[in-house]
Amino acid sequence: MIKGLGASSGIAMGPAYVIPAWDWEFPDKMVDATELSFEFERLYDGVRSSKDELEHIKQEIREVLGQEQSYIFDAHLAILEDPVFMNEIQGIISRQYKAAEVAVKEVIDKFVDMFDVLDDDYMKERAMDIKDVGNRLLKHLLGTVEDTPPPADHAYVLVAKELTPSQLVHLDPASILGIVTMMGGLTSHTSIMSRAMGIPFVLGLEGKLIRPIQNGDMVIVDGEEGVVYVNPDHETIELYESRKNNWLLHQERLQEIAHVPSMTEDRKSVRLAANIGSIKEIDQALKNGAIGVGLFRSEFLYMDRDSLPDENEQYDVYRQAAVKLEGKPLIIRTLDIGGDKKLDYLPMQVEDNPALGCRAIRISLERHELFKTQLRAILRASHFGQVKIMYPMISSLNELRQANELLAQAKQDLSRRGQPFNPNIEVGLTIEVPGAALIADVLAKEVNFFSIGTNDLIQFVLAVDRMNDSIAHLYDPYHPAVIRLLKLTIDAAKSAGIPVAVCGEFAGDIRALPLWLGLGIEELSMSMQLLLPIKHRLLTSNHAECERMLEEVLKCGTSEEIIGVLESSNSKSSAS
Amino acid sequence: MIKGLGASSGIAMGPAYVIPAWDWEFPDKMVDATELSFEFERLYDGVRSSKDELEHIKQEIREVLGQEQSYIFDAHLAILEDPVFMNEIQGIISRQYKAAEVAVKEVIDKFVDMFDVLDDDYMKERAMDIKDVGNRLLKHLLGTVEDTPPPADHAYVLVAKELTPSQLVHLDPASILGIVTMMGGLTSHTSIMSRAMGIPFVLGLEGKLIRPIQNGDMVIVDGEEGVVYVNPDHETIELYESRKNNWLLHQERLQEIAHVPSMTEDRKSVRLAANIGSIKEIDQALKNGAIGVGLFRSEFLYMDRDSLPDENEQYDVYRQAAVKLEGKPLIIRTLDIGGDKKLDYLPMQVEDNPALGCRAIRISLERHELFKTQLRAILRASHFGQVKIMYPMISSLNELRQANELLAQAKQDLSRRGQPFNPNIEVGLTIEVPGAALIADVLAKEVNFFSIGTNDLIQFVLAVDRMNDSIAHLYDPYHPAVIRLLKLTIDAAKSAGIPVAVCGEFAGDIRALPLWLGLGIEELSMSMQLLLPIKHRLLTSNHAECERMLEEVLKCGTSEEIIGVLESSNSKSSAS
Repeated sequence: MIKGLGASSGIAMGPAYVIPAWDWEFPDKMVDATELSFEFERLYDGVRSSKDELEHIKQEIREVLGQEQSYIFDAHLAILEDPVFMNEIQGIISRQYKAAEVAVKEVIDKFVDMFDVLDDDYMKERAMDIKDVGNRLLKHLLGTVEDTPPPADHAYVLVAKELTPSQLVHLDPASILGIVTMMGGLTSHTSIMSRAMGIPFVLGLEGKLIRPIQNGDMVIVDGEEGVVYVNPDHETIELYESRKNNWLLHQERLQEIAHVPSMTEDRKSVRLAANIGSIKEIDQALKNGAIGVGLFRSEFLYMDRDSLPDENEQYDVYRQAAVKLEGKPLIIRTLDIGGDKKLDYLPMQVEDNPALGCRAIRISLERHELFKTQLRAILRASHFGQVKIMYPMISSLNELRQANELLAQAKQDLSRRGQPFNPNIEVGLTIEVPGAALIADVLAKEVNFFSIGTNDLIQFVLAVDRMNDSIAHLYDPYHPAVIRLLKLTIDAAKSAGIPVAVCGEFAGDIRALPLWLGLGIEELSMSMQLLLPIKHRLLTSNHAECERMLEEVLKCGTSEEIIGVLESSNSKSSAS
Repeated sequence: MIKGLGASSGIAMGPAYVIPAWDWEFPDKMVDATELSFEFERLYDGVRSSKDELEHIKQEIREVLGQEQSYIFDAHLAILEDPVFMNEIQGIISRQYKAAEVAVKEVIDKFVDMFDVLDDDYMKERAMDIKDVGNRLLKHLLGTVEDTPPPADHAYVLVAKELTPSQLVHLDPASILGIVTMMGGLTSHTSIMSRAMGIPFVLGLEGKLIRPIQNGDMVIVDGEEGVVYVNPDHETIELYESRKNNWLLHQERLQEIAHVPSMTEDRKSVRLAANIGSIKEIDQALKNGAIGVGLFRSEFLYMDRDSLPDENEQYDVYRQAAVKLEGKPLIIRTLDIGGDKKLDYLPMQVEDNPALGCRAIRISLERHELFKTQLRAILRASHFGQVKIMYPMISSLNELRQANELLAQAKQDLSRRGQPFNPNIEVGLTIEVPGAALIADVLAKEVNFFSIGTNDLIQFVLAVDRMNDSIAHLYDPYHPAVIRLLKLTIDAAKSAGIPVAVCGEFAGDIRALPLWLGLGIEELSMSMQLLLPIKHRLLTSNHAECERMLEEVLKCGTSEEIIGVLESSNSKSSAS
């Protein structure tokens, strides 16, 4: 038995397939001055091919694992677009007259070493990303390296010194029973992906093995306990057979609650809906009991292409989604780009603080045709189901009125054309700008529903970029200011008599469930993987108790106190 | 009479001194491959010298015009650090084998043309900045250009096709009576500087002159009306002599109210304090009637140098300021770097959204020695006057407690050393994170005072980077959410019995004065130039009326409605 860290839960058992570490060997080739521009061209070609490949991978991932996972590869694209990284490489070529691949290798090694010496998990994981991108770039400069191909005839436990997201994505997930690596961290991109794929994963075995794992060794991966067995005895195998069955049984039980009514033990209903980023996710969401789609991220229609999608193309997708949902709600959020999401064909100014920049509805209100095209496509799809429109990043009544005015124009366009649509389509907005939350009473009078986007709301309320690891500890969903602002928004919606849902990550945080119940939230929307665990907890929760608990929470001055109150409530609920 | 645009108010009259447009002429020199690295070196040397020179100018400006004006040159430094700009230049050298100055000129021309064709004032002004930086860089690559020197024996009206901030800063401001330019915009850096320097400025005369203005022409500049006269007749000169005298008289009258008690006509006192960024500003602030310093930006002690200032060095400055103020309050804000303010010698991670990043108190709480050194210096200065400490960017009670714990340690250090300090020094914080405003009641229990930093507060509440011109129209101090949050903060401070001031730019906005009076603010802190105009309005304001007006404001759903209410109140006050 070797103790590591469990990066993705579940239990797996099977023969090992070992991926050798990539190791580039090539001569330290020099070029002369006349060859410089040729080397630059080679470099640029390599970068271009790497980017194309990454865009392709992103698209695949999005279709299989959903939008959120695909952002992992944005980090890789960002490295290839990083002027510091590229300048270093160009500098070595132009000043030291070295060949492109030599310069690339030197710069990767330099950055990886620099990040690796820091005793910081985040930095080590960024080093991993750089190594991954570097390998991809070298592959395009030097041609493919021959790996031992994975076994084609049976599933296996994947074993590697370290595993990059790129390596993982090139293997058939159906064949991977579990993963074991020597290096790596719990928040690395590979760990995140393995969790999304539901593959058990234990990492951090470096220096703990007596002999390296070989191809064909029998390996047990226990992602719950963070433990690995190599060639275990008969007894251990039997034990783990039964543990594996229990685990599968628990998964099945979760599946059984998918279609029981979603309510607390004292019969308070809470609708659980899904956040999706592609049509393919709808089937799984429904299988997991979603009452509909609470957040359809329309961005994917616009990404990884060369031009804006036209009205018919969008309409096709929205209609398909509406039809698949058979009358269940489909809330389509209008284009939410800008910030960290860019479109190649829609040039945007470089911004010092893109999170506080021209994004989401701000772009739509500047580009009327882009916006109206999308609105017409959504309106036409509304003929086929319970489609609703949601505006992102609204910060004032003026913006809401401008958006609604453009919606009225889109309706007129369709009436003129004689195309059918639901004239009473419901319109809502995401509450994610603190200013919108503070005037929720004013906004509530002119929309049909709210959905609280906690990710952005929290980051603006606390002035913390949650993607910035150096201050990530300050991104605190349980901060009393956040809770107060949530209460203010929810109370305003209730006074105005409109429904209010939560669609940020906080909605799927199991610790927060008593909070939502206490605040009187009646709809939570989350990624499909979270629906069943949340429902499982919901069924044993007590609404009246959560309301009493909220009184306590509102008296707290720090998030530690708030979490304390919630935990005592959660432990009561688990016990019951 | 030629009609242009008034960029800076006031009236000037005198002989013209015409600055010729910079026009670089040099051969389109090519280099061969072996000279490439030499050209790169020349380029890097030129960039380095340009940066040094800009840092020097920044420092001068700060001492003469105050901190805020010096930031203008940060835009220029940013261009020299912009990878896109530098990559273009390097690309032309390395791929087209052109000399450094040729590459620089081509890239400047390209960017300037690109920005100029856009029919957008902001872009045109950025083109001007690029031209300015480019000229500086060319000067360092090619040697100085001979300009006709300005007249040494008499003051003059400065005339130019266009005028860059660099050109303006190299002339003796005492000799410049007024400025006239053919091109330029009201929000250009040159316009901003002329206003800070109090020099009348009319721009936008392109195509309106019958013949170009010549050296020695008699020119009248009327910054109020945006009008210029060239070689006017005797009558016009007499008219303008009298207008000029009236204008000077008004300036004198303003000066006369500097030391009358600062209160409304119904005897509600409002303390007016100064925001300063260097000791030199204190004299002028006191002359303009400041009751003390409401915001001492300690950053200048840390900027434009190679290492952290030590305790004694800081102590010297804080003590001098305290002594100059003779017992009047001196609120020292602890180090507020990060965001858009960087220190060369304190490497910080590159951040995607620096405004939401590791800045201000967040840095101080990570670097205990840096913070305690500053706290000890402030504590020692507290022996010499009414010194107070203010923490910037506090977002939670935990942060406040951590800061106070380090303050307690700093006090212990001094006690151990036997150095005197005020053990009861007052401690406050800036309310500039929405989360802090929302828990103002909690924070108020553990500090002596609040000061509301409206600049950041508004940008976070509305999720708008106010420096981002493409969305600057969304940065709206009069947004009802802002007013509600201000009221919440002020009410919380009043309930807790602690004073609350306002120190952001909104404090010096003359339209907002009835708002502050209505909200019950008793202290406003602003740049010294604004003290007298605000006081002038204050003396004729009516507090009771403003309180009634606030009731109306709180009912408004949009900023347009709020501004409407305030304007009707302002017009009443001006009429009375």
